[in-house]
Amino acid sequence: MKLFDRIRKPTLLLDEVKALRNIHWMAEKVRQQGIRFRPHFKTHQSQEIGTWFHQDGVDAITVSSVDMADYFARAIPPGLTGEGQRWSDITIAFPFNWRQLRDIQRIAAGLAPAAARLGLVVESVETVNFLTRYLDSTGVDIWIKIDAGYHRTGMAWDNPAPVADVIEAIGSGGPLRLRGLLTHAGQTFTASSPADVCDKYQTSVGRMNYLRDALTQRGVTSLQVSVGDTPGCTLCADLGQVDEVRPGNFVLYDTMQLHLGVCSADQIAAALACPVVAKHPERNEVVIHGGAIHLSKDYFMQDGEKVYGHVAFATETGWGEPVAGAYVSALSQEHGVVRFTGAGFEQAALGDLLFILPAHSCLAVTAMKEYLTLTGKVISTMNSNP
Amino acid sequence: MKLFDRIRKPTLLLDEVKALRNIHWMAEKVRQQGIRFRPHFKTHQSQEIGTWFHQDGVDAITVSSVDMADYFARAIPPGLTGEGQRWSDITIAFPFNWRQLRDIQRIAAGLAPAAARLGLVVESVETVNFLTRYLDSTGVDIWIKIDAGYHRTGMAWDNPAPVADVIEAIGSGGPLRLRGLLTHAGQTFTASSPADVCDKYQTSVGRMNYLRDALTQRGVTSLQVSVGDTPGCTLCADLGQVDEVRPGNFVLYDTMQLHLGVCSADQIAAALACPVVAKHPERNEVVIHGGAIHLSKDYFMQDGEKVYGHVAFATETGWGEPVAGAYVSALSQEHGVVRFTGAGFEQAALGDLLFILPAHSCLAVTAMKEYLTLTGKVISTMNSNP
Repeated sequence: MKLFDRIRKPTLLLDEVKALRNIHWMAEKVRQQGIRFRPHFKTHQSQEIGTWFHQDGVDAITVSSVDMADYFARAIPPGLTGEGQRWSDITIAFPFNWRQLRDIQRIAAGLAPAAARLGLVVESVETVNFLTRYLDSTGVDIWIKIDAGYHRTGMAWDNPAPVADVIEAIGSGGPLRLRGLLTHAGQTFTASSPADVCDKYQTSVGRMNYLRDALTQRGVTSLQVSVGDTPGCTLCADLGQVDEVRPGNFVLYDTMQLHLGVCSADQIAAALACPVVAKHPERNEVVIHGGAIHLSKDYFMQDGEKVYGHVAFATETGWGEPVAGAYVSALSQEHGVVRFTGAGFEQAALGDLLFILPAHSCLAVTAMKEYLTLTGKVISTMNSNP
Repeated sequence: MKLFDRIRKPTLLLDEVKALRNIHWMAEKVRQQGIRFRPHFKTHQSQEIGTWFHQDGVDAITVSSVDMADYFARAIPPGLTGEGQRWSDITIAFPFNWRQLRDIQRIAAGLAPAAARLGLVVESVETVNFLTRYLDSTGVDIWIKIDAGYHRTGMAWDNPAPVADVIEAIGSGGPLRLRGLLTHAGQTFTASSPADVCDKYQTSVGRMNYLRDALTQRGVTSLQVSVGDTPGCTLCADLGQVDEVRPGNFVLYDTMQLHLGVCSADQIAAALACPVVAKHPERNEVVIHGGAIHLSKDYFMQDGEKVYGHVAFATETGWGEPVAGAYVSALSQEHGVVRFTGAGFEQAALGDLLFILPAHSCLAVTAMKEYLTLTGKVISTMNSNP
C-alpha cells in the first residue's frame, strides 16, 4: 500500500471501515433489545471517532476519567467531521475522586443544558456526604458502583443494607439525582471460552437484578441497572434485564479479544506499523521498532507464553490476516521482539513494516496519541499535542 | 506537605535532591575509573534534567530513539536551567532504522560542529551497505551492536567472523566512522542477587573484550567497548576494561531496582501521587486513581505476586519509607489496587494521596510526560505538550 511508504517510525493505523462496522453492529444489537447504549470512549479516546457513534444514533457516553469527560464535553474543533458537536450525557465510570470536585462542577455547569447529564459513580456514604456538603447546586446523576464478582472495586452485590445506606445518604430533591446501580463485569476478560463469557455476563446481570429487587423491597424504586463489557455485549445473544450497556473495546477490538474468541481477526480495526530493524535467523526472531512505550506491556498467555500482539504483513489495502505462529514475545522501552514459529521470517526484511495487532488496544491508543487511517488521514485523541 | 494540597489527579513527583545525588554519585564513580560516562537519557527524557548531568561534567549522552536524539540536540528553551545548552555527542542506542535515514541526516547536520558526533548502532552488513549507499557526506559514528548474553538483539559475541564482515563493509575514509562494539547487558535486570548482577556484568564485559581481542588479531585496531546498565554500574566496584558506560535508570531508580538490591528506598527519586478513591476493608485493599496509563504495566515478582509498585505516605518534606507489606497488586486503565498485608490500611483515607514508587520508572516517565518537583516546579519531558 502506497501510504505505508511514508511511515518512518511506529505508527498506529486505523481501519475506518472495520471500526465503523464494529460500531454499527453493536449499536444495532443494543437498539434491537431496547436498551440504552452508552459506549465507553476510553478505548478510542477521540472526538472525531466519537462522531461516528453519534451518526449511529448514540447520544450518551461513558468515560474513565474527569479529563476524558472534559475532552468529550468540548465542541469538536473546526474542520473535523461533526464540527461543533459535543456530548452532554456523560457518565464518568470511575469512583468519584474528592480532589476533582471543582473540575466536576465546571464540567457539569458547562454541559449543554437540554437533557444534560453528568453521571458520577460512588460507593460509600462518606463520598455521598462529601458531595452533598460541597457540590454546588448544579445537579449530577449518581450511580452506585457494585461489585458483581470482579473484585476490583464497588459495593458487594449480595449485601443490600450498606447500599441502602448510600441511597439514604443521597436523599432526594438535592443536587444528587440517584440513577441506579452500575457494575463492570471485568471477569469476562479472563473467561476460559465464549460460553464462559456469557455465563459470567449473565451471572453478573443476575446479581445486579438480585440487588435491585432487594432494594425495591426496601422501598427504593426506579433504580436502573448499567452493565457492560465488550466480551459479554459481543457474545451474549440476550443482554438481559438491564437499562444500559457500556462496552468500549469493541470499536477496535484487539488480540486479547481474538484469543478469547470474542472477535475475528478481521474485526480488529487498529494495528501498529513497526519497522523491522534487525533479524536473527538463528532463533527465527525479528526486532522491530515498537516497544512498551507504543503498545504498553499488557499481554495474554497463549500456550504458556506471554503474547503482546499478533503480527501481519502489508496488503494492497491495509494489513492481512495474522501470521500463524508469529507473535510479539518481548517488549522493552523501544524494542519489540517478534518470534516466528511457522512461516513468515523470510518475508520480513530489514526496513519493511510489520503490523502488530496489539494485545490491548485501549492502552496502545493512549500510548500512541493519534491514528493514521488507511486513507491517510490523521485522527487526534485527547492525548494528541494541540 | 503543603504542595500536595493542590494535587487533584495522578501526578509524577520528582525529588530533585535525590536525583542530583544519584547523578553525582554515578558521574563520580565512573570518572574515578577513567571511563567515559555516556548516560542513557531514556529514563528522565528531560532537557532540563539533562542540564544537571552537564553541570556534573557529562558531555556525551545515549538516547533510545531518533526522536529523542532530535529533542536533546535542540537548544534548551529560554527560561529553563541551562538555557541555550544543547548536546552534540549523542549515541542512538537502537538498531538503525532504514526508514529514518533522512531524520538522521538532519540531526547529524544540525549538531554543533565542534567535536560533534552522532553515533548509530548497526548489526548487519545490509544496514552498513544501506548507509554507505544513501547517507550523504555528513559523517556518523558507527557502533556494532553485540549480543553478550541478553539475546534481545545484536551480533553474537563469540563469532568474530560476521562482525569482521560488518567492519569490512564499514571501510574507512567514508562517512561511516567505526567507533567500536556496544552491548546492553539487560540480563543484569533479572539477576537473582547483587552478587549475580556483578557476575553477569563482568561476564558481559569479558565477552566484549574476548571479541575485541579476536578482532584485533584480525588487524582491527582502536575498537572501543561500550557497555552499561544501571544494576552493573551501580553495584560493581570495578567497571572493568571498557571505554564507556551507559546506565540510565539510576537517575530515578525504581522498585524493580530496590527489589534487586541495586538501590535503597531513599535513592528512588520519583513517585506517582495518587488519590484514594475507594476502600475495601474486607480485603485490606484501597483503590487509587493511578493505573496502567500512568505507571505502565511493568511489574516484578515478589513472593509469587506481581508487584507494580510500592507505597508510601506523605511526610512534611515529601514521601516516606515504603510501607512494609503494601504494594500495587493490580492495574487497569485508570484504577490501581493497593493491597496492605501489614499496617497502613487505616491510615489511607478517602481523598488522601498515596505515593506509588513505580516498578519501572522509565515507563512511568513516558506515560506521565512531566514532573512536579517537591519545590513545586513543573519539569517538562520530550512528551510534554508544547
